[in-house]
Amino acid sequence: MKNTFGQSVSITIFGESHGEQIGAILDGMAPGIPVDKDFILSQMDKRRAKGRISTSRKEEDEVLISSGVFEGKTTGTPICFTIKNNNTQSKDYSQTRNFARPGHADYAANCKYHGFEDYRGGGHFSGRITAGIVAAGAVAISALSEKGIHIGTHIAKCAGIKDRNFNDIAKDIQALDSMDFAVLDENAAAQMNHAIIDAANQGNSVGGILETAVFGLPAGVGEPWFDSFESVISHILFSIPAVKGVQFGAGFAMADMYGSQANDAFYIQDGKVSTTTNNNGGINGGITNGMPVIMSCVIKPTPSIYQQQNTIDFINGENVQFTIKGRHDPAIIHRARVVVDSAVALALCDMLAQRFGTDWLKGNES
Amino acid sequence: MKNTFGQSVSITIFGESHGEQIGAILDGMAPGIPVDKDFILSQMDKRRAKGRISTSRKEEDEVLISSGVFEGKTTGTPICFTIKNNNTQSKDYSQTRNFARPGHADYAANCKYHGFEDYRGGGHFSGRITAGIVAAGAVAISALSEKGIHIGTHIAKCAGIKDRNFNDIAKDIQALDSMDFAVLDENAAAQMNHAIIDAANQGNSVGGILETAVFGLPAGVGEPWFDSFESVISHILFSIPAVKGVQFGAGFAMADMYGSQANDAFYIQDGKVSTTTNNNGGINGGITNGMPVIMSCVIKPTPSIYQQQNTIDFINGENVQFTIKGRHDPAIIHRARVVVDSAVALALCDMLAQRFGTDWLKGNES
Amino acid sequence: MKNTFGQSVSITIFGESHGEQIGAILDGMAPGIPVDKDFILSQMDKRRAKGRISTSRKEEDEVLISSGVFEGKTTGTPICFTIKNNNTQSKDYSQTRNFARPGHADYAANCKYHGFEDYRGGGHFSGRITAGIVAAGAVAISALSEKGIHIGTHIAKCAGIKDRNFNDIAKDIQALDSMDFAVLDENAAAQMNHAIIDAANQGNSVGGILETAVFGLPAGVGEPWFDSFESVISHILFSIPAVKGVQFGAGFAMADMYGSQANDAFYIQDGKVSTTTNNNGGINGGITNGMPVIMSCVIKPTPSIYQQQNTIDFINGENVQFTIKGRHDPAIIHRARVVVDSAVALALCDMLAQRFGTDWLKGNES
Amino acid sequence: MKNTFGQSVSITIFGESHGEQIGAILDGMAPGIPVDKDFILSQMDKRRAKGRISTSRKEEDEVLISSGVFEGKTTGTPICFTIKNNNTQSKDYSQTRNFARPGHADYAANCKYHGFEDYRGGGHFSGRITAGIVAAGAVAISALSEKGIHIGTHIAKCAGIKDRNFNDIAKDIQALDSMDFAVLDENAAAQMNHAIIDAANQGNSVGGILETAVFGLPAGVGEPWFDSFESVISHILFSIPAVKGVQFGAGFAMADMYGSQANDAFYIQDGKVSTTTNNNGGINGGITNGMPVIMSCVIKPTPSIYQQQNTIDFINGENVQFTIKGRHDPAIIHRARVVVDSAVALALCDMLAQRFGTDWLKGNES
Repeated sequence: MKNTFGQSVSITIFGESHGEQIGAILDGMAPGIPVDKDFILSQMDKRRAKGRISTSRKEEDEVLISSGVFEGKTTGTPICFTIKNNNTQSKDYSQTRNFARPGHADYAANCKYHGFEDYRGGGHFSGRITAGIVAAGAVAISALSEKGIHIGTHIAKCAGIKDRNFNDIAKDIQALDSMDFAVLDENAAAQMNHAIIDAANQGNSVGGILETAVFGLPAGVGEPWFDSFESVISHILFSIPAVKGVQFGAGFAMADMYGSQANDAFYIQDGKVSTTTNNNGGINGGITNGMPVIMSCVIKPTPSIYQQQNTIDFINGENVQFTIKGRHDPAIIHRARVVVDSAVALALCDMLAQRFGTDWLKGNES
Repeated sequence: MKNTFGQSVSITIFGESHGEQIGAILDGMAPGIPVDKDFILSQMDKRRAKGRISTSRKEEDEVLISSGVFEGKTTGTPICFTIKNNNTQSKDYSQTRNFARPGHADYAANCKYHGFEDYRGGGHFSGRITAGIVAAGAVAISALSEKGIHIGTHIAKCAGIKDRNFNDIAKDIQALDSMDFAVLDENAAAQMNHAIIDAANQGNSVGGILETAVFGLPAGVGEPWFDSFESVISHILFSIPAVKGVQFGAGFAMADMYGSQANDAFYIQDGKVSTTTNNNGGINGGITNGMPVIMSCVIKPTPSIYQQQNTIDFINGENVQFTIKGRHDPAIIHRARVVVDSAVALALCDMLAQRFGTDWLKGNES
Repeated sequence: MKNTFGQSVSITIFGESHGEQIGAILDGMAPGIPVDKDFILSQMDKRRAKGRISTSRKEEDEVLISSGVFEGKTTGTPICFTIKNNNTQSKDYSQTRNFARPGHADYAANCKYHGFEDYRGGGHFSGRITAGIVAAGAVAISALSEKGIHIGTHIAKCAGIKDRNFNDIAKDIQALDSMDFAVLDENAAAQMNHAIIDAANQGNSVGGILETAVFGLPAGVGEPWFDSFESVISHILFSIPAVKGVQFGAGFAMADMYGSQANDAFYIQDGKVSTTTNNNGGINGGITNGMPVIMSCVIKPTPSIYQQQNTIDFINGENVQFTIKGRHDPAIIHRARVVVDSAVALALCDMLAQRFGTDWLKGNES
Repeated sequence: MKNTFGQSVSITIFGESHGEQIGAILDGMAPGIPVDKDFILSQMDKRRAKGRISTSRKEEDEVLISSGVFEGKTTGTPICFTIKNNNTQSKDYSQTRNFARPGHADYAANCKYHGFEDYRGGGHFSGRITAGIVAAGAVAISALSEKGIHIGTHIAKCAGIKDRNFNDIAKDIQALDSMDFAVLDENAAAQMNHAIIDAANQGNSVGGILETAVFGLPAGVGEPWFDSFESVISHILFSIPAVKGVQFGAGFAMADMYGSQANDAFYIQDGKVSTTTNNNGGINGGITNGMPVIMSCVIKPTPSIYQQQNTIDFINGENVQFTIKGRHDPAIIHRARVVVDSAVALALCDMLAQRFGTDWLKGNES
């Protein structure tokens, strides 16, 4: 399926950057989960463009819920979220309709949709569509939270500057929750902000790495092969625009380790099984082992830059030079982190519902 | 679904390391594709343990095809591949049945399967199950090859030693096809072999990075969001045991690039659209752009090492020390590369059949 | 998945009878298909309550399309349809919230959703939700029509009165398209209307049989086993509330035939293969044979009747007697026929896109 | 997907009538379910051809289980069942390779598989493939039985002769379990046998109706719309060759009822909710209501008859007359009933595992 993810708990997204509205349908969530509009809006707020490090297109992002919630709680039937597009400037795009913006989907989209695609603002490829994922993800995050499962993502690296590692995971996740710019180390945060503004001033953009921790997941979730925990999570993470790599635990660093270093020794203390290290990121053989799940993904630099670029006019089949107009982000990594939290939460709800049934996440009976 | 991958073209795998046989069902392949037993066996041979850099468990890996092939060609109906397990030594495992081998799935499996799992040789978690993927993948590779689509994987890094990059991709893919140890640079190959044997001599193991190129894919394949090309490929790659990270194009290195560096400029020459660089690995917005697809995955060091390790007895709930017995690989990366080729080929066939219909890969009519 | 149907072309529905709006997301439709608002509205109109044979709840059913259509044509990305609920009288339901209306889903829903379900007007179980299927189906019907594939459904039986059989299928389908009350024989239509009003006057309701023909489908669509043409069509038909039986060709009448009667003899004339009879309804072995596809489904009598009924209060666990209030249809079969047409069209688009690729239904390039 | 059914519990089938072996993979069954070879063989035996009312091709149908069962119990990983084809006479088919046997899939298959299909004995379309469904279904039936869920199917009608209705369902199901010819009324059984032999003597064949009851299902299983209980069950029932109609409860007879007749009144007694009638077949709004589930399907007369028939040579494009050779069944309904039981059991396990989690059906921990 194309714009639908999940089996027991699924999300379907729709919309274009300059259409009337965008949104998502969240289906299969257990009944009885409190739906807190303020929490949804606080999540939307984390994704919103703010300050000089983001695009000047600011959207209010009010979320209309028109089904699936009754008397303040999920009913168990599909929840429809819609978000209006208000602040669109489509004329920025009409002049360059036929130009393949480098790093963007324009040319690939044209090969797939044969010119019928909505080109304005990236159309259906726009990062704006992630607003629907965040709205739906907020309900998933609430449901997980009630079961003691918490998710947090920080900017582990941006413009070459590193944040400190996760330390006390439960505490770090809590701290991240209240941050606009999700960096655990204050100095690193300041440097990253500086670097983003520097790039913006040069009409350039930067990328980085988002690292995510999940705390409180039961052991025994995931499958040995095609629906391994990593397969399912990576499937949804690679759906987020700009993600070009995903790793779990030590990830690519394992290429330089010996088995004796990479193996995580198990131990049991007070009846609780843990590992001394967590190079496997809480997953063995595709299945959670009860340790915190640790993963990270790379966010490529925003492809929209204000420098002259070489490219093609794919309708007329000729080489051209052009400079992108419109309003764009010099970095999206700080806005993307709540998208990652949301995507992970949705995938977790699906895996948990498959494993333990559709009632597992349910609230107390009315 | 658990052991099935794909929608239009799908693979289902089954078996345990020490069961009677393992295998795979390949469904949805177009009719009329020649099935060459010699080619299948040559692919199986690339996965087989050979020499001092592999386990001493050697299997003949004869492949029985018992359905879906008629008069030497695919019929379009499910193809059943079975491969016998002959060379099993189950007693190696009975003493440590309750021990969670570090880096292995034993403990996680026990949380999921409650003690009913077949523990011998890793059971259903064993890398042995990949033999079914290779057998099925051989048919997929043949079909793609007829359409001018070629796949090749090399060991980009092993034990800290790097191979040279892909250069002339078509030629490199061809060269890799005849190699047992898939390294493009001969000196690097020799060093890697040496390093693996060194590790083996110390009862240790090493990992590395496999880099894969796909040549000849049409533009316009993949989806903007949840079934992005990257999502589908990563889903199947993370199904392969020991894969802990997947990246496309420049991948994690993009964290340190500016937009002006990461963007791939398009140009057109003689009617053919290309990009000057390929940092996006041939994919924009989840859809192929006609450039070679480049991706890599990290293979963690084999968790079975011959050194004493701390762990738990998860049945009796106590901390123990133990040393793994049995026959194991000091490295699996050289055996894993054909698994990666096969997995990628299967995912490609599925995406192509969804995009262009179930007949697209079909042979000439009888 | 719960409220999503289809693989290559999929529909997701949402909403409740008395919520703010209901709707559907249609994904995977080929790009370039003209979207004609007037045609959509004319389809919606066929489903609307009209006259004495329907409920007095009349809805305008204006359809808002907020994504996936650009410059009057499908883009190939998800199309969001929403329809407002205006004419709701929720107080009709508050008094009987705990009563299991016989023939309705109230009790079963309570067992599934634990009291969190929206009970007003049947909530998510309401036939009102089919409006989203009709809106999405209109685009599917348009797309099929461009390829020469036409669908028509008539009321083959209602309140014991039979319509004539399909005769000249192409012509009959065309005639049905302009009818509000889809009966081929005028006398039968008059009698059925009479019988419905009679039932209404007695506070009762009637059911019937809808028979559907599809003309112009290519041979070779469908699968031998689990995704047989019949399996896929019946799956979506049984999703329509009130459908309790589905049959193809002669269907249940085949129980009384000999093989020599049931077999459809093939013949070829002017290069075209046909069968002399069509007891198999255009499908052999789960695959279309090029003959018109014929199927029918039974619509049970509307369960909401204005007579006193015995039932339970499922919250308080006691037997009660009650009489349904609110506005209800003495028959829904005449409104259901466009739902059947739409559901069949959606399933056909999915099967055709899987068989021939996502571009098969596409319009001419822009 | 084509030869795979189910999400949480899935079956994949493969094989051809005259290939080396056929079989099935059952995935997602809970761990710890006892696998009793004798019970599997007794189920296979119900499907086997016996006596004059069946084909003279008799197969031993020994079932090899080569994965997913360890120490006599399911492991929770895929179970592979294979069954050898021994008694094949392929030359019966070579002369008529190009002839479209009326009522068979030959012509439709040729349109789909372009001549690459295995034509011998119906190839992948053969009823023989149902042996894999029966083997896998036996494990599903065992698992359900442990949870108090029992399934039974009788021949409600054959050659125009009717069996008595279900009466005491639990008792009737038990009685059916030990019957070769599953008819509740002995006289009806004798008459049906007679009628089948009469048809056979005339080189003809007969069909009938199978009615199935499920006892002990919890309320609250199924979905309001696309994965309604009826949708899922009908999907798998229409996958069985020869099934051309499926109905639930009173089914098509509801076309002639008033709402006041069709509605099933609820009542509560000793805390247990029931209905006085069961016209809805235990399902309201797509969800089980705790009453026995009742459904039936029509089995068309075997298309292979020994009378001269008109048809086409689809390779040479000409009209021909021919008489089928080979060994065929004058009726398959008595052999099909265990296929129906098995298919229903597999679908139930899938729906229950989705609803209550993958452990719900699991055996006691080891």
